Amino acid sequence: MSEILDIAAVVERLLKVDNILILCHKNPDGDTIGSAGALFWALKALGKNVMVLCSDEIPARYNYMNIAVFDDSYSPEYIVAVDVAGMQLFGDVTVSWAENCHLCIDHHPSNSRYADAMLLDGNAAATAEVMYDLLVAMGVQITPIIANCLYTGIATDTGCFKFANVTPRTHTTTAKLMEAGAEYVMLNELLFESKSRRRLAIERIALESLEYHFDDTCALVVLTKEQIAETGADGTDLEGITSMPRTIEGVKVGITMRQQPTGSYKVSVRTSTGVNACAICARLGGGGHHRASGCEIIGGLQNAKAALLTEVERELKNPTPIEEQE
Amino acid sequence: MSEILDIAAVVERLLKVDNILILCHKNPDGDTIGSAGALFWALKALGKNVMVLCSDEIPARYNYMNIAVFDDSYSPEYIVAVDVAGMQLFGDVTVSWAENCHLCIDHHPSNSRYADAMLLDGNAAATAEVMYDLLVAMGVQITPIIANCLYTGIATDTGCFKFANVTPRTHTTTAKLMEAGAEYVMLNELLFESKSRRRLAIERIALESLEYHFDDTCALVVLTKEQIAETGADGTDLEGITSMPRTIEGVKVGITMRQQPTGSYKVSVRTSTGVNACAICARLGGGGHHRASGCEIIGGLQNAKAALLTEVERELKNPTPIEEQE
Repeated sequence: MSEILDIAAVVERLLKVDNILILCHKNPDGDTIGSAGALFWALKALGKNVMVLCSDEIPARYNYMNIAVFDDSYSPEYIVAVDVAGMQLFGDVTVSWAENCHLCIDHHPSNSRYADAMLLDGNAAATAEVMYDLLVAMGVQITPIIANCLYTGIATDTGCFKFANVTPRTHTTTAKLMEAGAEYVMLNELLFESKSRRRLAIERIALESLEYHFDDTCALVVLTKEQIAETGADGTDLEGITSMPRTIEGVKVGITMRQQPTGSYKVSVRTSTGVNACAICARLGGGGHHRASGCEIIGGLQNAKAALLTEVERELKNPTPIEEQE
Repeated sequence: MSEILDIAAVVERLLKVDNILILCHKNPDGDTIGSAGALFWALKALGKNVMVLCSDEIPARYNYMNIAVFDDSYSPEYIVAVDVAGMQLFGDVTVSWAENCHLCIDHHPSNSRYADAMLLDGNAAATAEVMYDLLVAMGVQITPIIANCLYTGIATDTGCFKFANVTPRTHTTTAKLMEAGAEYVMLNELLFESKSRRRLAIERIALESLEYHFDDTCALVVLTKEQIAETGADGTDLEGITSMPRTIEGVKVGITMRQQPTGSYKVSVRTSTGVNACAICARLGGGGHHRASGCEIIGGLQNAKAALLTEVERELKNPTPIEEQE
C-alpha cells in the first residue's frame, strides 16, 4: 500500500531528486501523455534531467508536446507514474520500471496503490487537473507548452467538457491554462474535429447495419470481421463507434456487436440514465459500469443476437436497480 | 443608431419598468432562447410582468426553461431583443414589435444598431455570457433554472467549448453557473449527445456519396433532392452534415452539394486554416466567411461539380490571401 502524500510533500520529494523517469500507461491517451509532458517540461525548467517512457508508441498527434523519450543510456534515480491506475496498465516495456515506482500521480479512485507513495485526487476530472495544482505549488511558471499539455489532458478526459466528470474546478483550471497560452483553437481542432478515413468507412458500415428493436428503444449495430478488415479500422476507430447507437433520440440501449477474428462477437452495451447495462452483460458472462458494459458471445450471429436481445428485453421490462458506485 | 449603454445603465432602465417583452431571433438557437429564458426568470424574481416572443416555435428540447410565451392580452411597455443582430433576423411575428425595440442585448460585433439602446459585448462567446454579468449586476440570485438557461446559451454557441470564440471568461462564467446549480450532465446529453434518426439516415447517405479529389485534400458529398425527401431531413439535419467532409484527416476543403427542389445545387464549402472558402464561392456568385462559405449552382450534377472543382483546384494552387475580419 502506498503512502498517501499531499501536494506539499510531493513538491518536497520532487525538488530533492535530479534524474527522473516519468511512466505513462499503455495505449496512451491525452491525459497520461499530457500529464507526463507537463511534468517533463516543469522538471526541465527546474534544471532536472527527465525522460518519459510508455510501452506503446506515443501517437503522432501529440508531437507538439515535444517530449524527450527514454533511451537506454539513461539511469533514473526516481520513478513517477502519471494517470496509471494499476500495474496491469503499464505494458511490457515499462512494467519492470514500474515495480520500483516511487510516486504515482493519479485521479482514478480505483488506483491499486502499487507505488511507494501517491498523490491521488479522485474528484479531479483528469490527472492533468491534479498536475496543474502540483506545478503551481512547485513554483513552476505555466509556459505555453505546459499549458498545451495540461489542456490536452483535461480536454481529452472530459470529451471537451462534455462528460459527467467535469466540475467547476475543471473550467476554472482551463481558464488559467488559456490565460497561460494554451493554443486551444489548434488543440480542439486536432483532438476533436479530425476523423480518419478508416473511422468514416466503419461509421458508414455501422449506419448501414443499424436496426431498431422494442419500439425503437434499442438500437443495434453489427460489424463482421470481413468489414472490419476491409476498412482497416483499428481499436480506437471501433471504440468510437460503440457510443453511436445510444445517442439516437429515444434509444435507451445502444448495442454494438463486433465479430472477432475467431468468429465470436464482442458486444458493447451503452445505456441511458436508469437502464442497467451491467445487468444485461452480467447475465451473458460480462460486466462493467452501469451505463457502459461488455460481454463476448460465442456462436452464429442470429443466436448471439437472439441471446442478447432476450436479456435487453428482460432488463427493459424488469429493471435491475442501479447501485451508485464510486 | 443606438445609444450604447454600460451594464449599470441597463440595470437602471430595467429596474424602472414593469411590463417587459423579450424578443428572440427567428430559427431560434440555444443562445437566443437561453438568454431570453435567463432574463425572463430574473425579471420575474424582481416582481416584473414578463413574456417572451419568437417568430418561430421554440424547439421542444428547450422545454426545461419553462418560459411564458407571449399572448395577445399582454401589452408591454418595454421591449428587449436578445442575441438579434439585425432587423431581418426577427421574422414575421416579431418584426412589428422590433420596430419599437427599446433595448438590444447582444454579442455580435456586426449588430446593425436598430434598437434605441444597446448593451453589446463583441468579445463575449455568447449573449448568455453578457446576460450573466447583467443579472449579477442586477442583484438577481442565479437560481438553477437561470443557470440552466445561461449554460445552454454558452454551451450551444461554443459547440460545447470547442469553437475559437471561447475565452478564459467563458470557462470562468461556466464554472460559476455549475456552482449555481446548472444541470450540465443532463444538458450536455440533451444538447450534444442526441441525434435524430433522420440525421443518422442522411449521414449514412452522405458517407455513401463521399468522394476525394486533389490527392485527398478535397472531400465532396452530394445529396439529391430524392435522398433528402426520403430521409425527411430538415434544415438542422442538413446543416449538421456540412461540417463533416472537412473534418476528415488531411482534408483542406470539405464540400457538401445539396440539390434543391428546383434542381439547382446549394453548395457549402468548409476549409481548414489558411484556405479561403470565400474566394472559392465568390467566383461562383456566392460568399461568406473565410472558412465557411456557400453558393448556388444551376445545372446538372456533372457540370456543377466540374465548375466547383475547377475553382477548388485553382484556390489550392494559387491561394487568395485571407484578410482577417472582425
